[in-house]
Amino acid sequence: MTPANHRPELQILESQECRSLLEHAPIGRLAIVSDGRPLIFPVNYIVDGESIVFRTADGSKLDAALRGEAAAMQVDSLDHGARTGESVLVVGHLHEVTNEDELLRIESLGVQPWASGHKPHVARLDIEKITGRSIMRTSRSEFFIG
Amino acid sequence: MTPANHRPELQILESQECRSLLEHAPIGRLAIVSDGRPLIFPVNYIVDGESIVFRTADGSKLDAALRGEAAAMQVDSLDHGARTGESVLVVGHLHEVTNEDELLRIESLGVQPWASGHKPHVARLDIEKITGRSIMRTSRSEFFIG
Repeated sequence: MTPANHRPELQILESQECRSLLEHAPIGRLAIVSDGRPLIFPVNYIVDGESIVFRTADGSKLDAALRGEAAAMQVDSLDHGARTGESVLVVGHLHEVTNEDELLRIESLGVQPWASGHKPHVARLDIEKITGRSIMRTSRSEFFIG
Repeated sequence: MTPANHRPELQILESQECRSLLEHAPIGRLAIVSDGRPLIFPVNYIVDGESIVFRTADGSKLDAALRGEAAAMQVDSLDHGARTGESVLVVGHLHEVTNEDELLRIESLGVQPWASGHKPHVARLDIEKITGRSIMRTSRSEFFIG
């Protein structure tokens, strides 16, 4: 049995590590507040300078963007075999991107509409704060973040 | 090139499918609201009847539980190769579990403290609503949920 003080320590990630994970994660989870309650949506996104952009249709994500509300995006990289991983959290505010030149530029970055019959919107989450922690799982039933 | 109308449809999961994913996902992402802003934390958890239980130390998750605040837990199962997956969202309210008998029972379910030197708390998220959708990724740069 491993003594408690030999268990791996939780660690805070450096800014560059956070940024790297954010840029390479295949998917993120976006949280918004709707009627005072948090909601979470998995979204694909791209990092565009100091913000995250993603497409969205009408709905609560767009509503939040139109109101410029606070939101959070969490991404992680987990190794279930090794029981280790990292998690990064971005907090900021959402906005809809409506400028045509800006939309064309974002299109060129690879955020495509999800179906040609739809006309989804582009939302931007400003990266106001980015933090990250290592995650350690110390037994089969445990998986913790600092 | 695949015509747009041949792209996979987004689908709503049946209640039993949602429940199964929730019970078998290795980790979930918990969203709470702190000072009006959403925050997301990866947590391990277990499903205990009509609620989700997890351990937490002092901090914003415990604060939210002490106030009985609304929270959300999202879990997913993604196949990056096949570009398909499912995502389930639970919404409800958080509470701290303080009853000794209840804590002992929950301990026996396998939610252990993450370090013996700590005395973390147990929080419960009542499953007030559970919904799920299929996720389809239609190109390398796309990953969408309905």
